[in-house]
Amino acid sequence: MSTISEKIFSRAAGTEEVKANEFVIANVDYAMAHDGTSILAVRSFREMEIKNVWNPDRIVIPFDHLTPANTDTTAALQHDTREWIKQQNIKNFFDVGEGICHQLLPEKGFTLPGKLVVGADSHTCTYGAFGAFGTGVGATDMSEIFASGKLWFRVPESIKITVRGKLPRHVFAKDLTLKIIGTLGVAGATYKAAEFYGDTIEDLTISGRMTLCNMAIEMGAKAGIVPPDKKTFDYLEGRSVEEYEPLYADEDASYTKQYNFYADELEPQIACPHNVDNVHNISDIPATRIDQAFIGTCTNGRLEDLEAAASILGGEKVAVRTIVVPASREVLLEAVRKGVIETLLEAGVTVGPPGCGPCLGGHMGVIGKDEVCISTANRNFKGRMGTGGSIYLASPATAAASAITGEITNPADI
Amino acid sequence: MSTISEKIFSRAAGTEEVKANEFVIANVDYAMAHDGTSILAVRSFREMEIKNVWNPDRIVIPFDHLTPANTDTTAALQHDTREWIKQQNIKNFFDVGEGICHQLLPEKGFTLPGKLVVGADSHTCTYGAFGAFGTGVGATDMSEIFASGKLWFRVPESIKITVRGKLPRHVFAKDLTLKIIGTLGVAGATYKAAEFYGDTIEDLTISGRMTLCNMAIEMGAKAGIVPPDKKTFDYLEGRSVEEYEPLYADEDASYTKQYNFYADELEPQIACPHNVDNVHNISDIPATRIDQAFIGTCTNGRLEDLEAAASILGGEKVAVRTIVVPASREVLLEAVRKGVIETLLEAGVTVGPPGCGPCLGGHMGVIGKDEVCISTANRNFKGRMGTGGSIYLASPATAAASAITGEITNPADI
Repeated sequence: MSTISEKIFSRAAGTEEVKANEFVIANVDYAMAHDGTSILAVRSFREMEIKNVWNPDRIVIPFDHLTPANTDTTAALQHDTREWIKQQNIKNFFDVGEGICHQLLPEKGFTLPGKLVVGADSHTCTYGAFGAFGTGVGATDMSEIFASGKLWFRVPESIKITVRGKLPRHVFAKDLTLKIIGTLGVAGATYKAAEFYGDTIEDLTISGRMTLCNMAIEMGAKAGIVPPDKKTFDYLEGRSVEEYEPLYADEDASYTKQYNFYADELEPQIACPHNVDNVHNISDIPATRIDQAFIGTCTNGRLEDLEAAASILGGEKVAVRTIVVPASREVLLEAVRKGVIETLLEAGVTVGPPGCGPCLGGHMGVIGKDEVCISTANRNFKGRMGTGGSIYLASPATAAASAITGEITNPADI
Repeated sequence: MSTISEKIFSRAAGTEEVKANEFVIANVDYAMAHDGTSILAVRSFREMEIKNVWNPDRIVIPFDHLTPANTDTTAALQHDTREWIKQQNIKNFFDVGEGICHQLLPEKGFTLPGKLVVGADSHTCTYGAFGAFGTGVGATDMSEIFASGKLWFRVPESIKITVRGKLPRHVFAKDLTLKIIGTLGVAGATYKAAEFYGDTIEDLTISGRMTLCNMAIEMGAKAGIVPPDKKTFDYLEGRSVEEYEPLYADEDASYTKQYNFYADELEPQIACPHNVDNVHNISDIPATRIDQAFIGTCTNGRLEDLEAAASILGGEKVAVRTIVVPASREVLLEAVRKGVIETLLEAGVTVGPPGCGPCLGGHMGVIGKDEVCISTANRNFKGRMGTGGSIYLASPATAAASAITGEITNPADI
């Protein structure tokens, strides 16, 4: 009678039948920090005066947030971190241009069913798409993991979210995700693990499941988990860095709450400024001019996202600045090979190098005061992409449709 | 008995037979400012309290230096400039992702033989590749042109540079250009117009001639000019925005100095830190480790440059961060269609969006303190790409070869 999270923590803590709300010291299977957080984690690690990390092969460091370096300070800090990585013999280092951490860890086979993967980034919950328990911690907690391979947790209670029905044309995993967050609210799942069930979830691609789990943190969840299935195993085939054992909830597992959603009638969703749960049907949004469209991020920068955008933008021209940033080198290469990038470029899109792009307002498309951006990212907080701007969150198809008209537009209307 | 420059200024000033060192008020055929300088030119224009620019169709504004916007300040300034461009009805506006000014003006047919093209950027001399007189001015001078369409000039004296022979394999226009600058020195052609002659120049592609003329300013020249020929006319076919009349020097034109260069024995050239005329044969450079390679800019970001890099990088892997930034959307699209981008991505290159990239140290690959970059740009001044770093200038082939080995390497050795 255990949830997926309880089973994963039982295994990771080496204790039988750990239950929700118990405190455990868990062995972390893989630890991740990116350029933004590794800097701080390394500083904290150095202060401990421990010579070597616990296990260099279980630490993964992608540089993605401010790459290629945007300032002198960034360049110097990244240089310093690279030196530490070399010195610590960390082989799983992905430098400038390789992609976003939450895309690279799955691609490189670190996000395995039943594993505990901890990242110094809030969207580490993405890895639940593979039946892993992925969760974010602060950089000082990460330094503890670097040193010991362990971290304490209160095992989360779980909620069960079931989705049934078929997503209509032009409605995607992102719309469903926004609908769920809009319904539960930004604190609706605080410190809970959200398990996702139902035929809609089963029908989602791996990419769609990643979108869904990626945003679990936006309703406060400690993790968002999809039970692994054949799609999961197929994706991991040839990628996984080690053996794994999928873990599933027992039929009589205990959930603090259960929610049901229905996909059949869903329309494109928009999260309006400045909260992720300020979600509305696109048909309820008044005419809203935009200055910029941004398609990318760990939420929606994968091949099928770029393909969705290209299918809308093919033969059209964008009316506003439109920035597409593929989530990884693999995504970009596939998109080049399939003609997706050519289509986007012909439509007037600006394609940035794999990484986080302007998502966090650090470079590559910061928006000006009073400017409006429609974005496929996961956060629309005030100031996120530039002081004073406004961000509307949407699917890649909706962002692409809006880029053509210059105002928020339902892709069904293109 | 006139030089090309004297003929162009005679036409532009509406005076017969203007001679070197005379002062003229010339009608500017096309005026260019980019995001960095238009901000200042617009501010100065507003201070004049003149309502409208002299001729919106003769003003061209590409945004290239800090695009997509890298900071709040940039975003706000670009937003303000866009508003002014709209208000002034300037149609020749090229926003984020279109490319570098000095690539876009040729592609869009503004750099025509016999024309006077003034840009608020020092590398406006690039347009001499088409037999235009292209020269850079400051942003306040540009505001005067915005207002009146005119600017005063002292007609430059001319020097004649003749190059004969065939460039060896792995030696390019960039190497020849560096050789010339290394020989004449950074002040070797101050306020002179350099006219280029000889079979080597005739054999250069349009792209190679642009590389050559682009760097004329690096020896102090007011302009660098290649007499237009069939290649020029072919390139401009279908691009030129108006009729033009090529102007050529008379046989008895007067040159203050003449220089002769020979291509046959030339080897790849390197401009070492921190001056553009600190040029050496690559075989004389001691082993020099690099941290980053950068291929792009108005000097060397064209299709043939990317192809040269790809021909070296195909089937190889880069050992250091390697950033390629195509000079324009057209260049990038062609490179995608021809498989060049795929080859570069497979080799581990990071491809940035069309624009100036990290050339001026503003973003997209700033180098850290003590880091070394090999770059295909036109300037290696201390601090150009980041405080404290060192820049070695080279051809795209040499930069690509060096990216593979991690130290400065002759492409012939790959």
